[in-house]
Amino acid sequence: MTWGLALDLLGTFFFAISGSLLAAKRGFDIVASLLLGSLTGLGGGVVRDLIIGRPPAAFNEPIHLIPPVLAALVVFFMSSHVQRFWTTILVFDAVGLAVFCTTGAVTALEFGMNPIASLLLGVTTAVGGGLMRDVVANHDPQLFNPRDLYAAPAFAGSALIVLIWQLGGAGNIALYSVTAAVLVFRLLSLKYAWRVPGAQFARGQGDGSAAS
Amino acid sequence: MTWGLALDLLGTFFFAISGSLLAAKRGFDIVASLLLGSLTGLGGGVVRDLIIGRPPAAFNEPIHLIPPVLAALVVFFMSSHVQRFWTTILVFDAVGLAVFCTTGAVTALEFGMNPIASLLLGVTTAVGGGLMRDVVANHDPQLFNPRDLYAAPAFAGSALIVLIWQLGGAGNIALYSVTAAVLVFRLLSLKYAWRVPGAQFARGQGDGSAAS
Amino acid sequence: MTWGLALDLLGTFFFAISGSLLAAKRGFDIVASLLLGSLTGLGGGVVRDLIIGRPPAAFNEPIHLIPPVLAALVVFFMSSHVQRFWTTILVFDAVGLAVFCTTGAVTALEFGMNPIASLLLGVTTAVGGGLMRDVVANHDPQLFNPRDLYAAPAFAGSALIVLIWQLGGAGNIALYSVTAAVLVFRLLSLKYAWRVPGAQFARGQGDGSAAS
Repeated sequence: MTWGLALDLLGTFFFAISGSLLAAKRGFDIVASLLLGSLTGLGGGVVRDLIIGRPPAAFNEPIHLIPPVLAALVVFFMSSHVQRFWTTILVFDAVGLAVFCTTGAVTALEFGMNPIASLLLGVTTAVGGGLMRDVVANHDPQLFNPRDLYAAPAFAGSALIVLIWQLGGAGNIALYSVTAAVLVFRLLSLKYAWRVPGAQFARGQGDGSAAS
Repeated sequence: MTWGLALDLLGTFFFAISGSLLAAKRGFDIVASLLLGSLTGLGGGVVRDLIIGRPPAAFNEPIHLIPPVLAALVVFFMSSHVQRFWTTILVFDAVGLAVFCTTGAVTALEFGMNPIASLLLGVTTAVGGGLMRDVVANHDPQLFNPRDLYAAPAFAGSALIVLIWQLGGAGNIALYSVTAAVLVFRLLSLKYAWRVPGAQFARGQGDGSAAS
Repeated sequence: MTWGLALDLLGTFFFAISGSLLAAKRGFDIVASLLLGSLTGLGGGVVRDLIIGRPPAAFNEPIHLIPPVLAALVVFFMSSHVQRFWTTILVFDAVGLAVFCTTGAVTALEFGMNPIASLLLGVTTAVGGGLMRDVVANHDPQLFNPRDLYAAPAFAGSALIVLIWQLGGAGNIALYSVTAAVLVFRLLSLKYAWRVPGAQFARGQGDGSAAS
């Protein structure tokens, strides 16, 4: 097993936990837990693979299915405990984000995509699964939460990977370093509630439609 | 027309009926009825074909578009009647589920996918269209309803098809038998309200977030 | 830059404006504005490209990313103004619709798709992005609004393009003329509130489920 695969499986597991937890929270059954976990853990990578035109690894290499199954079991047997560790979950999700934005960008670059597309595909891999999770579960996407800076670390991490690749240095050390940096960036943003400015319409300006 | 195609068109029609009915229920117009019916009837197969890497049959063979058009017309002219036969609709939907989990798995196997991927693609074909229907119509997915066992029969049917294929026996008789067995399984699960256990958080444990 | 590319970029920009505006309305941040704008402006074309089996232009030709970036900036700096020009937005969106249903159908035809598939892919290109926008933002799709005739002009425009192509006349003049006709059709439908009949269930008939 290569480092890249190991990282990918780790990221899949942590993302799948968040999907299975959401299923549990909504009272869905274990099958839904498995499906929602798989969608969260594998969905971003499947979309990336479809766009770059290779067979989705999630389907071609069954080993990718083990993390979602484990995640569904963990949530099934330990949901009351997992629930209490919401902060831990956020950390896990941050690991998934950090791993997927870097491995996603590397996968696209290795496949010969141009730098900008690779950057976008890194972001897609990182945020796509969580977006699908929320869309399918009929939620407002966490990704768009204005009180949470979620896509920015993934964007920065993918951009760094692409830049390093352009400069000719794409070894494992670079990949690990950027992944770690994105993780720290994301955790700091959670701890200090960093925000990105938005284009919210001014209040009291007839914005009754804001709730639409 | 082969048996496989005939079954597929039948499944498409029944699924499309459920999509068109939802459009009628929500007060959408006939165009929405057509689009939602097509998405429900064809969406699962299109995703399957994109993943296995062949041109989606729904687009390459226009005959697949006839069932959704028929379904939209049926619902348009007979919606008040159709509405009264909700039980009938559930039976129709069960036929679609049974047909698609088996033909979906066979399609994947014939295309050379590995057994586990084929199983998953059978399930995807069977539940993907209905999931898209609910997601697009801004509903909680019926698929995740904890009081309804929906994915399990599809899972069992796809698994059986893959098993029989592995054992070397993949004739029409096997396909028909498994399809019929899935149909019976699904109908029994409806009649007796079978459930799958879930990982619901215990009540009264500060689970105010359950409604989120 | 060919006329086709220029038209495409124009359509992308106008659609992206509607996505970024929705993000602003919902109070999402600038990253969400960029993502939602890109999804609206590029999503329909990406799905079309995946189905016809070519690498999505949005990823392979970075020039397609400029319109969503511009749109996000426009909305960010001028949202309070943009908000007052809702009618203008509807006109912009109509331009996007008219452009994408014709260029989408032409792209499919040039790629060798059959006439019916090309018609559907034209409609997909035109309405797919907006559908994704609403689905991701957790809205009832505008596309299905029974008080608004949205898909019909796209359907008519794609059908006309396919017809003209079949008759052997697929020059720029035909493309421009059909695009203009679709635009006029859409604007008239807005001005006079044209509707398509639906299969709504009769009121007072125990239809408490209509709100489901």
